[in-house]
Amino acid sequence: MAKDNLSAVLYGIEDLRLEQRSIPTPKNDEVLIKVEVVGICGSDVHYYRYGKLRYKEVKKPMLMGHEASGQVVEVGKNVTHLKIGDRVAIEPGIACGSCNFCKQGKYNLCLTMQFCATPPVDGNLTRYYCHSARFCHKLPDNLSFEDGALLEPLAVGVHGCRRGKVTVGSVVLIMGAGPIGLVTLLSAKSFGASKVIILDLVDNRLQVAKQLGADYVLTIEKHMSEDDIVRKIQKILGESPTISFDCSGSEICVRIVLKVTKRGGTAVLIGMGKLEQTVPLSTALFQEIDVIGGYRYCNDYPTAIEFLKTGRINVQPLITHKFKIEDTLQAYETAISGKDNPIKILIYPNKDRYPAIFS
Amino acid sequence: MAKDNLSAVLYGIEDLRLEQRSIPTPKNDEVLIKVEVVGICGSDVHYYRYGKLRYKEVKKPMLMGHEASGQVVEVGKNVTHLKIGDRVAIEPGIACGSCNFCKQGKYNLCLTMQFCATPPVDGNLTRYYCHSARFCHKLPDNLSFEDGALLEPLAVGVHGCRRGKVTVGSVVLIMGAGPIGLVTLLSAKSFGASKVIILDLVDNRLQVAKQLGADYVLTIEKHMSEDDIVRKIQKILGESPTISFDCSGSEICVRIVLKVTKRGGTAVLIGMGKLEQTVPLSTALFQEIDVIGGYRYCNDYPTAIEFLKTGRINVQPLITHKFKIEDTLQAYETAISGKDNPIKILIYPNKDRYPAIFS
Amino acid sequence: MAKDNLSAVLYGIEDLRLEQRSIPTPKNDEVLIKVEVVGICGSDVHYYRYGKLRYKEVKKPMLMGHEASGQVVEVGKNVTHLKIGDRVAIEPGIACGSCNFCKQGKYNLCLTMQFCATPPVDGNLTRYYCHSARFCHKLPDNLSFEDGALLEPLAVGVHGCRRGKVTVGSVVLIMGAGPIGLVTLLSAKSFGASKVIILDLVDNRLQVAKQLGADYVLTIEKHMSEDDIVRKIQKILGESPTISFDCSGSEICVRIVLKVTKRGGTAVLIGMGKLEQTVPLSTALFQEIDVIGGYRYCNDYPTAIEFLKTGRINVQPLITHKFKIEDTLQAYETAISGKDNPIKILIYPNKDRYPAIFS
Amino acid sequence: MAKDNLSAVLYGIEDLRLEQRSIPTPKNDEVLIKVEVVGICGSDVHYYRYGKLRYKEVKKPMLMGHEASGQVVEVGKNVTHLKIGDRVAIEPGIACGSCNFCKQGKYNLCLTMQFCATPPVDGNLTRYYCHSARFCHKLPDNLSFEDGALLEPLAVGVHGCRRGKVTVGSVVLIMGAGPIGLVTLLSAKSFGASKVIILDLVDNRLQVAKQLGADYVLTIEKHMSEDDIVRKIQKILGESPTISFDCSGSEICVRIVLKVTKRGGTAVLIGMGKLEQTVPLSTALFQEIDVIGGYRYCNDYPTAIEFLKTGRINVQPLITHKFKIEDTLQAYETAISGKDNPIKILIYPNKDRYPAIFS
Repeated sequence: MAKDNLSAVLYGIEDLRLEQRSIPTPKNDEVLIKVEVVGICGSDVHYYRYGKLRYKEVKKPMLMGHEASGQVVEVGKNVTHLKIGDRVAIEPGIACGSCNFCKQGKYNLCLTMQFCATPPVDGNLTRYYCHSARFCHKLPDNLSFEDGALLEPLAVGVHGCRRGKVTVGSVVLIMGAGPIGLVTLLSAKSFGASKVIILDLVDNRLQVAKQLGADYVLTIEKHMSEDDIVRKIQKILGESPTISFDCSGSEICVRIVLKVTKRGGTAVLIGMGKLEQTVPLSTALFQEIDVIGGYRYCNDYPTAIEFLKTGRINVQPLITHKFKIEDTLQAYETAISGKDNPIKILIYPNKDRYPAIFS
Repeated sequence: MAKDNLSAVLYGIEDLRLEQRSIPTPKNDEVLIKVEVVGICGSDVHYYRYGKLRYKEVKKPMLMGHEASGQVVEVGKNVTHLKIGDRVAIEPGIACGSCNFCKQGKYNLCLTMQFCATPPVDGNLTRYYCHSARFCHKLPDNLSFEDGALLEPLAVGVHGCRRGKVTVGSVVLIMGAGPIGLVTLLSAKSFGASKVIILDLVDNRLQVAKQLGADYVLTIEKHMSEDDIVRKIQKILGESPTISFDCSGSEICVRIVLKVTKRGGTAVLIGMGKLEQTVPLSTALFQEIDVIGGYRYCNDYPTAIEFLKTGRINVQPLITHKFKIEDTLQAYETAISGKDNPIKILIYPNKDRYPAIFS
Repeated sequence: MAKDNLSAVLYGIEDLRLEQRSIPTPKNDEVLIKVEVVGICGSDVHYYRYGKLRYKEVKKPMLMGHEASGQVVEVGKNVTHLKIGDRVAIEPGIACGSCNFCKQGKYNLCLTMQFCATPPVDGNLTRYYCHSARFCHKLPDNLSFEDGALLEPLAVGVHGCRRGKVTVGSVVLIMGAGPIGLVTLLSAKSFGASKVIILDLVDNRLQVAKQLGADYVLTIEKHMSEDDIVRKIQKILGESPTISFDCSGSEICVRIVLKVTKRGGTAVLIGMGKLEQTVPLSTALFQEIDVIGGYRYCNDYPTAIEFLKTGRINVQPLITHKFKIEDTLQAYETAISGKDNPIKILIYPNKDRYPAIFS
Repeated sequence: MAKDNLSAVLYGIEDLRLEQRSIPTPKNDEVLIKVEVVGICGSDVHYYRYGKLRYKEVKKPMLMGHEASGQVVEVGKNVTHLKIGDRVAIEPGIACGSCNFCKQGKYNLCLTMQFCATPPVDGNLTRYYCHSARFCHKLPDNLSFEDGALLEPLAVGVHGCRRGKVTVGSVVLIMGAGPIGLVTLLSAKSFGASKVIILDLVDNRLQVAKQLGADYVLTIEKHMSEDDIVRKIQKILGESPTISFDCSGSEICVRIVLKVTKRGGTAVLIGMGKLEQTVPLSTALFQEIDVIGGYRYCNDYPTAIEFLKTGRINVQPLITHKFKIEDTLQAYETAISGKDNPIKILIYPNKDRYPAIFS
């Protein structure tokens, strides 16, 4: 077995180091995975810049990375559904399986969840990584490792659509065309939404949205008031959206969602907003608009895999940048700078997987 | 037939007049009702004091009253389920029966709803009143006319509990022990909640709450901070509530509800709050606490009737004051002043029903 | 206004007569419709051959027809959402709108339902026909009158899929590739089923099924045992179906559905079976396979219209035969004989609509 | 630690032996339990008499017992929520926690479920027994060990009511007043059913049912036809039941349930019936009566515990007989003979718990 386990470790604010770690040994219910592709998520960047996110703080060195795929190279003795050589997507949260939330099928709410790269739990931006086999999903043959890594954000979109009960005939609004807005768009269309409109400040993201199947896009311009935007959405759709998603976290977008959604509809807030928000909550609730959140995912990987396997969803257009693990810092700086309009940035930990473009 | 149809008509702000109206004739699908008991609701008082409520304004004289019961004295020719002499509760909103909301069983969201004493629709604080037979509920023999009038607020409590999915084992918090808080308490217990805690600023309301079955009461005192109250609720319950109701409409109560509810639980906001509220919405939603409203009621009268009929709920303790229709102004002034701790004030339109206490 | 109202009236067993009826006048909530296309359904044929179906018997002359579309030519005075010239699909069941089933949004269970061509209620295989405007659906511009008539069976498929909760990832089995099996196939695919297998004895129906999007078809052959078929289904799918439909009404198909469905799945029986059936019910229920029926439709026309409007479903391949109303008897005889493999047979009541093929 | 581990082991048909087994050592996630009370279930008796039940056969010696409570005497090293001395109810099925059914919160459908005294898995009619801590429920102080053992059948009743969605206002029919019928009665009342009628052939069981809160009982007499019974049920209730349970497994009872249930209602078949049943299935399904089963329980112990803890349910009246483990054979023979009208028979494995009545 190789000895090289180069890993990306966050020591503190803007202190991300590449260092060697020993290759771990899988426990009975784990597999050892040669990690092939790891995506960068907004939360990773947030920890890098600020050392914390909401109530979680990086207090000791932590491996980064939680959107990953790889190949099984060793199998714990109790593992039955995976074998050496299997290509897998890594669902990054390991729920306990014993608490009432887990027993009731809401394992994303597990109170003792161990989630990759959420302090103090190590992530998988590393060459070799052990993970609970329960949360490794075998990739169908026609899915690439890139697909495998992108299943993580896609599962967030699937979960949001499940929470919002998007189905045939839904009229959907999405505020924000970043990665989460775009996977929500992909999911909503696949769940049967009849129309999807998506808004953003950045025009080129909306171009990607159109390519991914948005029925309507609307560029938010500086001079537009909140109520202008509400009216424009209704005018473009010819009606009010029945299910609205905020994937931006911005207060004005939450306000628009609460104002524009149809009576009896649903507002799903996925974007991570400010702790305190001033919103027209009461008016929305009086129309029995349900205001709900979506937290990560729960039993959503199988659906996301199905979408990719059957070709109903193609996540390739989301990928804008690729880096080798040695260039992790550059990858993070690209995410921060916004240069070249990054949407999804991928990192390749293992040399034999480095694409030709790197050479 | 009598010619006397004394009616309470609101002409504008604090301009409520008693005047004779002609006795109406029922249309084919209507019944004419001799009105026996009419409760006063917070919204009635609001129209009286301010001439408007949210987006609705009294622009022409409007009969007051929407919590009413009475006796059928004439029957339209297409009515099959009611006959002269039947004692009925009047469900005050007449939904169209044709729009998609109505067809889908969400008739409280009907866009052309005609609702008693919501401008410009006349109410039923009058001696003789016609109503769609579809929305008249025959009273079982063991229910009084007072019960019949109180079914209206009780149906709000039932609807809130249905919306919040209160069931066996629910741990329930109720903010506010006014009439709506109290009917929510009664309903929650009857839906099987294992524990209910209710809070208010006013101690004597909490005494009524105890009498009605609250497991715990907590008087909010001026010096308590929001977070103090959150901690006290959790301490008293020994856990977080799984379903929390705001029945007060106050921002601090909404904030408490959002902070204290258990992960994966539900916050039901029934109290009519300010149009804009500053709240920790994002934190609640990230724990997949659903934030929902309850608007009036929909198919809830039958359940409310069942509760009273079987004795599981007794609404009599809510009744604190009784007036004849001639004293309507005095009744409204009592509601406003808060003198003698009014909870539910009833008005009797017809002389032969005037209780002995009046003489 | 024309005086010609040629109508197809069933007088008794195999006694179907064409006769003139007077053109009706719409009531306040009705519209008068010039009927353009009427499909023949299995139940129509059953009444024609046997004079009865289950508990319903033709005791007096009854107009046939319940799968119809047409054009509004007169409007009752209370009708607001339709005007003269509107092209409409006629939802053939008029629910009362007042009973508890109607108020709860389950109007297909209305006990006083008036349903076209179900004794003793007249149908719409006639030139001019009045119907409650509440149950007339305006056709989008890109839907033909043929589409309008086929919405009726399609709504049965939509309703079955809703009842069975077909969604993204469902693995679906359909027993029977007659009109109802085929519309169930179309609906299941549109609700997101990942795989659909459909079985029939008749090969050419399965060819249509393939054309309509079936992932797998299996011709049932005489020599196959029930358990052979169960094994073949599982082998072809590579797993057990999660949702199985019987659209045949035959006992052996119901048995297969109960045996083959996945643990925790759903068996939806839509085909009208024998009154008494010998089935392995207990084994299915012990695996928490829910056994449910779908009765007609309820709030399903809007979804069916949406499917056609957006092009997700094309019902044209179902249409195999067209007749003018004068040839109604020939149309019924074609349905009975099975000659030329009829699937959906359409009748045109009005001369100016007669297709060129007739001349 | 004691060395005495007297155990009741089934070797084959009517070959039940008491023998010493070694005291097991708990694995990391297990606890060792001193077993205090074990109930006898119909399935235990069936294995004893026939050596098999449906597809499960006793092929090697198997410890009996699956309705048990006891005291923790040793704790595996990964167990956090239990400690030595805790009194526990043993939920007898150990689900894997990893398969999709488990992850989705339907662990009763787990395909690799290990269930006590279901071949080839050993049960807990023994003095010392190890069980997964995940499936041990700590008993509140006011619950006895007898309560702890009876939680198992009670959980079946709770699960059935959950599956059937019994709630406030439900009108419930229960066929069969054996232990499962009686716990279904207790649960249905506690879930808010407004009326419950229960039927049996045996009068003294119905007396217990009355004591437990049945609103109506009906003794089935030999001369009554199926349709007589249907009519009597409807007459007594004054309406059709909205939710009907078969807790008998007999074909005629299943037939009655299918015939009598209200349109749009639910038929829950819990009794283990014949593999093949001749039933009027199609008629029931055409009225959208859902026909469903309830299999064991899933997340139902907490509710059952809550019912006992709050005094809403008292299971003591179900207990008719008590035996020490040495008299296990006599206990089984009592169950078979029906002498002294046994309902629930309990066995006490440990001497220091033997009630005074034994001496």
